[in-house]
Amino acid sequence: MTIRCAVVGATGIAGQQFLAALHKHPLFDVVRLAASARSAGKSYRQAITRPSGQVAWWDAPEALERFGDMEVVEGSSMSLEGVQLVFSAVESEPARDLESRYAEHVPVISTASAFRYEPDVPILIPAINGDHAKLISVQRERRGWKGFVVPVANCTTTGLAIALAPLHQHFGVDKVIVTSLQATSGAGRSPGVISQDIVDNVVPYISKEEAKVAKETRKILGTLQGELINPADIRVSATCTRVAVLDGHTEAVTCSLKKPASIAEVKAALRAFGKDINPHTHPSAPQDWIWVHDDPFRPQPRLDRDAQGGMCTSVGRVREDDVLGDNGVKFVLVSHNTKMGAAKGAILVAEDLKSRGLIA
Amino acid sequence: MTIRCAVVGATGIAGQQFLAALHKHPLFDVVRLAASARSAGKSYRQAITRPSGQVAWWDAPEALERFGDMEVVEGSSMSLEGVQLVFSAVESEPARDLESRYAEHVPVISTASAFRYEPDVPILIPAINGDHAKLISVQRERRGWKGFVVPVANCTTTGLAIALAPLHQHFGVDKVIVTSLQATSGAGRSPGVISQDIVDNVVPYISKEEAKVAKETRKILGTLQGELINPADIRVSATCTRVAVLDGHTEAVTCSLKKPASIAEVKAALRAFGKDINPHTHPSAPQDWIWVHDDPFRPQPRLDRDAQGGMCTSVGRVREDDVLGDNGVKFVLVSHNTKMGAAKGAILVAEDLKSRGLIA
Amino acid sequence: MTIRCAVVGATGIAGQQFLAALHKHPLFDVVRLAASARSAGKSYRQAITRPSGQVAWWDAPEALERFGDMEVVEGSSMSLEGVQLVFSAVESEPARDLESRYAEHVPVISTASAFRYEPDVPILIPAINGDHAKLISVQRERRGWKGFVVPVANCTTTGLAIALAPLHQHFGVDKVIVTSLQATSGAGRSPGVISQDIVDNVVPYISKEEAKVAKETRKILGTLQGELINPADIRVSATCTRVAVLDGHTEAVTCSLKKPASIAEVKAALRAFGKDINPHTHPSAPQDWIWVHDDPFRPQPRLDRDAQGGMCTSVGRVREDDVLGDNGVKFVLVSHNTKMGAAKGAILVAEDLKSRGLIA
Amino acid sequence: MTIRCAVVGATGIAGQQFLAALHKHPLFDVVRLAASARSAGKSYRQAITRPSGQVAWWDAPEALERFGDMEVVEGSSMSLEGVQLVFSAVESEPARDLESRYAEHVPVISTASAFRYEPDVPILIPAINGDHAKLISVQRERRGWKGFVVPVANCTTTGLAIALAPLHQHFGVDKVIVTSLQATSGAGRSPGVISQDIVDNVVPYISKEEAKVAKETRKILGTLQGELINPADIRVSATCTRVAVLDGHTEAVTCSLKKPASIAEVKAALRAFGKDINPHTHPSAPQDWIWVHDDPFRPQPRLDRDAQGGMCTSVGRVREDDVLGDNGVKFVLVSHNTKMGAAKGAILVAEDLKSRGLIA
Repeated sequence: MTIRCAVVGATGIAGQQFLAALHKHPLFDVVRLAASARSAGKSYRQAITRPSGQVAWWDAPEALERFGDMEVVEGSSMSLEGVQLVFSAVESEPARDLESRYAEHVPVISTASAFRYEPDVPILIPAINGDHAKLISVQRERRGWKGFVVPVANCTTTGLAIALAPLHQHFGVDKVIVTSLQATSGAGRSPGVISQDIVDNVVPYISKEEAKVAKETRKILGTLQGELINPADIRVSATCTRVAVLDGHTEAVTCSLKKPASIAEVKAALRAFGKDINPHTHPSAPQDWIWVHDDPFRPQPRLDRDAQGGMCTSVGRVREDDVLGDNGVKFVLVSHNTKMGAAKGAILVAEDLKSRGLIA
Repeated sequence: MTIRCAVVGATGIAGQQFLAALHKHPLFDVVRLAASARSAGKSYRQAITRPSGQVAWWDAPEALERFGDMEVVEGSSMSLEGVQLVFSAVESEPARDLESRYAEHVPVISTASAFRYEPDVPILIPAINGDHAKLISVQRERRGWKGFVVPVANCTTTGLAIALAPLHQHFGVDKVIVTSLQATSGAGRSPGVISQDIVDNVVPYISKEEAKVAKETRKILGTLQGELINPADIRVSATCTRVAVLDGHTEAVTCSLKKPASIAEVKAALRAFGKDINPHTHPSAPQDWIWVHDDPFRPQPRLDRDAQGGMCTSVGRVREDDVLGDNGVKFVLVSHNTKMGAAKGAILVAEDLKSRGLIA
Repeated sequence: MTIRCAVVGATGIAGQQFLAALHKHPLFDVVRLAASARSAGKSYRQAITRPSGQVAWWDAPEALERFGDMEVVEGSSMSLEGVQLVFSAVESEPARDLESRYAEHVPVISTASAFRYEPDVPILIPAINGDHAKLISVQRERRGWKGFVVPVANCTTTGLAIALAPLHQHFGVDKVIVTSLQATSGAGRSPGVISQDIVDNVVPYISKEEAKVAKETRKILGTLQGELINPADIRVSATCTRVAVLDGHTEAVTCSLKKPASIAEVKAALRAFGKDINPHTHPSAPQDWIWVHDDPFRPQPRLDRDAQGGMCTSVGRVREDDVLGDNGVKFVLVSHNTKMGAAKGAILVAEDLKSRGLIA
Repeated sequence: MTIRCAVVGATGIAGQQFLAALHKHPLFDVVRLAASARSAGKSYRQAITRPSGQVAWWDAPEALERFGDMEVVEGSSMSLEGVQLVFSAVESEPARDLESRYAEHVPVISTASAFRYEPDVPILIPAINGDHAKLISVQRERRGWKGFVVPVANCTTTGLAIALAPLHQHFGVDKVIVTSLQATSGAGRSPGVISQDIVDNVVPYISKEEAKVAKETRKILGTLQGELINPADIRVSATCTRVAVLDGHTEAVTCSLKKPASIAEVKAALRAFGKDINPHTHPSAPQDWIWVHDDPFRPQPRLDRDAQGGMCTSVGRVREDDVLGDNGVKFVLVSHNTKMGAAKGAILVAEDLKSRGLIA
């Protein structure tokens, strides 16, 4: 009794991550692939073949074998017949219209930012704010949709929100200053980051990213009050940079807390986080939502990004800070930006909503 | 009438940078090269040739042609006959003894950290704290030396102190949170950073670096009061990381100021800094001590590290911050770690001390 | 009395290299910049600014300051009024039409491949086949052009042809097997090579490149007989790969010779090559067309690509081979693909044709 | 009934690969770890911890958890009590003595080159020359050993010999010209390749590697005649380079054959190779010894090195060559240098010798 899904934006990097994660998923079955007009009518394999002949597939070959011959349809005219759920990996601009159209009929879980900042749309990370799913009924009623749209967070927000969540819950987070060292896969592949820009280099700016991180963190860590999410009273200041790393965002975080907490207490709170998520209903969930390293040379993106299927946030260098504000704590985290931070994170949200009876 | 210099630790990466910078210097003439016992008695070229036969020279060929046949002597027994000045690029541990021995007789300008934290030793950056040179007479008297030791700052401190100096001077710096993305050349080459550790990766820790940055920044920006340097009342919190960049440290800086300053005023202060340094007496000084970019994608280490001979600190993304404290400002800087941040910075200090009559 | 030039395709990577090389050139003066319709009417700086705001300029800032405010016109409708010479860096497809149109009126030196294989078009490398310039009069007569088109070779061919030329001249080259390890800049920047494809990787194929190398090498090393170039009787087998190097193609070459030659004779022939080129008439020419290294760890692209302004071909590891055929020789070369192998190589051709009175 | 093994040289990169591969192996059980005097008496985890505190472990954490607390003994004084088999990953120089000492008592499978060129020592790759194992009895008798030494091939030879084996068997290989683009892990980690040497670069030389490739290929593909291996009559010419790839050697191979073979026949021979190896007795063997790609952009080291546990040799770009000699064929291969090319290849040899009753 699997749920029949469509993947829209299937040819891009996030779309590929959806297929790689779904091709043997116990709960979801991909029955339709959609992309832009340019790909429509082609087999999936043809659709991802460049003019040069190169097959632009970046993951394990099994998923490509499974989906390579499936026809790709155009996202804007895709039939939802027989589709119970849409995973959307389209760009944010087309997402606005496309996802609205799908959501009239079926649930949509999206990696796009189009709906993230709407008041009736939760940004879900199950171990943090699963209860925000209650907003879905508000969204449906207000918009007259049979389905709904739930976006996941920006990939840089995801790791930060997960690491802050237990601190906020136990001690209250007041201020946050974060510098991200982001992987190139976060920019997608059309064209993504060209090597001329990033080899032997750092790019100190990622357009719009810093504002997203601040805004989304407050919303995700906020509390649902009636029909509204009351954003967490956390001030976030971000500097987002790009480094020559293929996958895995590294973030250097300094925060201050509302209540005193020893480093041991902070580590204990981090380690205990997410243990209430049921692995049977959430097969994509990591065993450890947060892995805390004591070795000061960890986490490193190449060594830690794939921990627990790319779904575990690795934290290290937890130490005191006496500059930012009261009860200061500093740490470094690594989070896989295209797995937990995008497609696999969206699948985890779908698992959560299925467990709540919101997808069926 | 050039000054006759010895370069000690001449075979390492900082040593090579000394030779590359000195081989056509108008004021200094290299008359002696010293290194460890392993190199003693060899020609410089032999001394830098690995067992595999590879000549481990990393800079332009001209300097190697100039010095390749010069004999290398052992640092610990080097004669100072005919030597008026020692540039030291030895490791910090041997530096303690070696530099003391040399300083009994002649001035020593050093890239090592051995003496940086002694109360009678200034850490000089000419445009910032040239007046701290007055401490040299205290040092001489206290230690009974005819010469003296002046170290330059840690390479990560250098760029930070330069960018903060005009802000501190005009507006007063209160708090600083900095994340560094450091180049691999900063770790030297014996063995330095191996590619297995850094390709497609970030290393989130550099041993002892963060404490150095905090302590040195306060000392450099401090004020000389009688026979003591009164450290600046600036609180600095650093996270130092290593990225896959060959040269050029990038630093994401957030600071708060004691007085209000508009972004335009901050940029103006940065741009005006160092203009009083005389290029005739200081041939290594950059025309612009700080170059301020308006393009948000700058500075980038590969594009900006070599600006003005690697002596210019490039600053960009200057913007407000409302999290750290009052009058918050954020920016990103790039500073060449082995040029301004090491050997060429030391030569610039020598030029400055010569202009003050302390080297002759 | 400088020659007034237009640079077409000025916004791409080869176009930028033209501007970087021409902004202080003693013989040529850039009076017009052209690019595609998308750039037309903008200032050069605007034309190279990405939607994100990033100014996509990759070279020293001086040339951008010189040309940043110059208006860019559309290549297809560019007026040739006041233009004495066109440097073309357009893609090969539009080059066919555009360069024909320009050549009706003025000389065109091009980095595009469009005309390379036409029988009345020489591929010029001055030290090798300057005499092929005689074909220009055939071309003019046959096509009824007042100007002409002269393309430079493919960037991978350039280094190979230069290294083979003295061997062919002295000993006769018979067979050549070459593996190239090409830099990413060779693919341009629209989109060029994305980091996801090349970091921690090798791409074993470059579309059409291998056939170009074989065909062009034979033509360049061929002899002019009447109105035709008789290709050299050299068999070339190439495998072209892409590696994570920003600039500088490395090529591992094995060849067999028609006459015996000791390694010392081979090195002597390489070192003597190109010494008859006059630096006064050819200011872009390197002092040494070929630099022969004895250190087996050289040449390396990062250390050697910029030798002599990026115009010198560095050769090392010259040794015997006893597998390919009689009188076998193996070596490794490095050649700067966007300097000698593209824009600066084209400027050198223009200098040569000027010295022959063909450009005035 | 597993075989009790010692791993000598356990702290290096090949040693770690042994542990990573053996910690859950069905046939072999690690009962002793040995390394140099510096590590002796420490726990394995302590032994691989750098002075900086960094735990220099590069593989999955499970194996480190399994062996981290095991004591490391000194290789030169290691007791063989209770040890049935030694896996040796020591450097070639100490290997000569150490492996002799062990082989007096027990079988030794080694990644070192010390014994590779001895006439009574086979270099085994099971699918190619398993019958060379007969030489072991000669070796035992001649040396008076109860055990024996069997080395695996150099990592660059391994992929080449595997790809050539089916061609040699079916069509006869005559001449081979190969250029390798080798990964940095091949140089180990003490110090290995430093980033300053390889980022944005190619190193055109690897000491002694080219001669090894030629000599070993002939021996491995040779035929056992009585008590001697008659080397294959194949002439091999290699150029070995290092590129900025972490794992996986790429090799561009041109060869000529003694009998005509169409490209289809060549591909069929490659694909059929190794199918007689029994996966039950050889659990480390890949399902496909050679995977042939039709996509010209493959193989790529990052995408293909880990295929089938790093034990599969990936071949692509199979095409005709008309330069090297009769019946020319060109292709590109990728082989994992520390898996099939070192530790896991050695384990596969042990599995093969166990299946032959030579290890028990």
